[in-house]
Amino acid sequence: MIAVHLDNGRVTVRKAPKPRRPQGHALIRLLCGGICNTDLELKRGYQGFTGVPGHEFVGEVVEADTKRLVGHRVVGEINLSCGKCSWCQRAMGRHCPSRKVLGIAKQAGAFREFFTLPERNLRRVPDLVPTEAAVFAEPLAAACEILEQARIPELDEIAVLGDGKLGLLIGQVLTVHGYEVHLFGKDPAKLRLAVKLGLMAEMAPRKLPRAAYNWVVEATGAPDGLRHALEMVRPRGTVILKSTLHRPVLFNTASCVVNEITLLGSRCGRIEPALELLRTEKVDVLDMISDRFPLSRAPRAFERAAEKGVLKVLLT
Amino acid sequence: MIAVHLDNGRVTVRKAPKPRRPQGHALIRLLCGGICNTDLELKRGYQGFTGVPGHEFVGEVVEADTKRLVGHRVVGEINLSCGKCSWCQRAMGRHCPSRKVLGIAKQAGAFREFFTLPERNLRRVPDLVPTEAAVFAEPLAAACEILEQARIPELDEIAVLGDGKLGLLIGQVLTVHGYEVHLFGKDPAKLRLAVKLGLMAEMAPRKLPRAAYNWVVEATGAPDGLRHALEMVRPRGTVILKSTLHRPVLFNTASCVVNEITLLGSRCGRIEPALELLRTEKVDVLDMISDRFPLSRAPRAFERAAEKGVLKVLLT
Repeated sequence: MIAVHLDNGRVTVRKAPKPRRPQGHALIRLLCGGICNTDLELKRGYQGFTGVPGHEFVGEVVEADTKRLVGHRVVGEINLSCGKCSWCQRAMGRHCPSRKVLGIAKQAGAFREFFTLPERNLRRVPDLVPTEAAVFAEPLAAACEILEQARIPELDEIAVLGDGKLGLLIGQVLTVHGYEVHLFGKDPAKLRLAVKLGLMAEMAPRKLPRAAYNWVVEATGAPDGLRHALEMVRPRGTVILKSTLHRPVLFNTASCVVNEITLLGSRCGRIEPALELLRTEKVDVLDMISDRFPLSRAPRAFERAAEKGVLKVLLT
Repeated sequence: MIAVHLDNGRVTVRKAPKPRRPQGHALIRLLCGGICNTDLELKRGYQGFTGVPGHEFVGEVVEADTKRLVGHRVVGEINLSCGKCSWCQRAMGRHCPSRKVLGIAKQAGAFREFFTLPERNLRRVPDLVPTEAAVFAEPLAAACEILEQARIPELDEIAVLGDGKLGLLIGQVLTVHGYEVHLFGKDPAKLRLAVKLGLMAEMAPRKLPRAAYNWVVEATGAPDGLRHALEMVRPRGTVILKSTLHRPVLFNTASCVVNEITLLGSRCGRIEPALELLRTEKVDVLDMISDRFPLSRAPRAFERAAEKGVLKVLLT
């Protein structure tokens, strides 16, 4: 079989043996993979990652201990947790200190013809959800995570900084939950899409509105995103950090202290609410697909995903 | 009269006219001033400050519209707010966007023989509280602010990073409120004092405990404090930022995002709870006084306050 390989910033496609299925794991055939900004950051050196990337996937279960899984489409919780520690016992395996993370940390990822994952990590894709929509379950779960962490008062306005994939998903999720979302971005085409998706989208002006929102979501993926977010948030407001950047950024702690700002780091979320949003078609993800490549053309797909103006690139 | 002057990193003592008292303001004679780390940061260039510094003070009211204030010792809320905006109307004048801040921003400070402050900013010092204890009201209020912002579950352990003035006050305030406080510092004499003050104080080891506390208060005043705090806090835990540094620091946003850490900026607090702690002698501040200088020797006092191992330096 073939597998994508990431090493020192280079993406290649290699032949690899079909993985053996450990007990409790399912063997999964990749149907569709999504390239995420985190994958591009891994390519730039984030986490010092070498190996098979890929954590956004839809697969078909080929073999499993649990027979009723076989033949079905699945998506997955990407954190492989120990199941025993105090985090796991509180259903917070995403923070298990000995976790591995599919295609990100200590666990070869999904961008290969076959891969394995613990069966308990898998969630069946509802029949009505197209594969190319279901592949958004993982980033959509990350968008939903915001509402599991922060209690945002009803009717509060929220600014989302960033018109990329994650910003558009976050904007949609918050809109579905009744918030007035102002999405700020720099790409006219992406902002037009945002409007189509039901958001109030604005071209990020040279001078962003200052101290204007109680809630600002930083999803730019850019080093200056935090600075802009801190300028836009009101005193005593909250900046939700979503970008995982390879390098540290400069942070003016004094502005955070003086204005008593809360910064809230936010990562992966539970898959279930994301699948429900896809099943009920409350968010539109298909319009966010920019391009598709076969797995064998992964190097080109990674290049394409890094191009300006491009949203989701799929591996099929 | 004489006034301390700060300009471009230089502290001088100058002759100055006795200030005129605007309506609604009191004319106050300085009894005691305290040099704070923020003053030392102002000297290093924080806020681009030029003028009379000083925001920790006890004074005697010499003239006022409100006659019952005259002749009494007072401390003060250092934010001069407009009294009209939505912040002021919610009793949050400390975040009034058009505020001036005594000795920090747009308002000449208290390190001069006479100064003025709005009468509504003043709080009478209870008779039993010595002047040299009352001068700690402002930083003690800043320590109390933490408990107004964060709901820390009973019995939770809290790490305080920093054995300086603010760290010792914060440690005491949290201990008084029933929390188990572990204070980490580098100065053996300050740590001995911390133990005397009732804290569990530990010499900061080369390797600080990792992911060990749900709550970490960063009060080091040092650029690497944030990094250490992020290492010590548990996933989903909170780092309370207290240091106001002149320069931005490097911040690994990924660690904050991946571990879903909350950073909470925390600044000034209400004076009332601080005066109550002083009146009931629940905190010990007198042991934190390292030295005293007359106002005329302020340049030497600022030097002394910046020396290693020195805690509070008073101007009398």
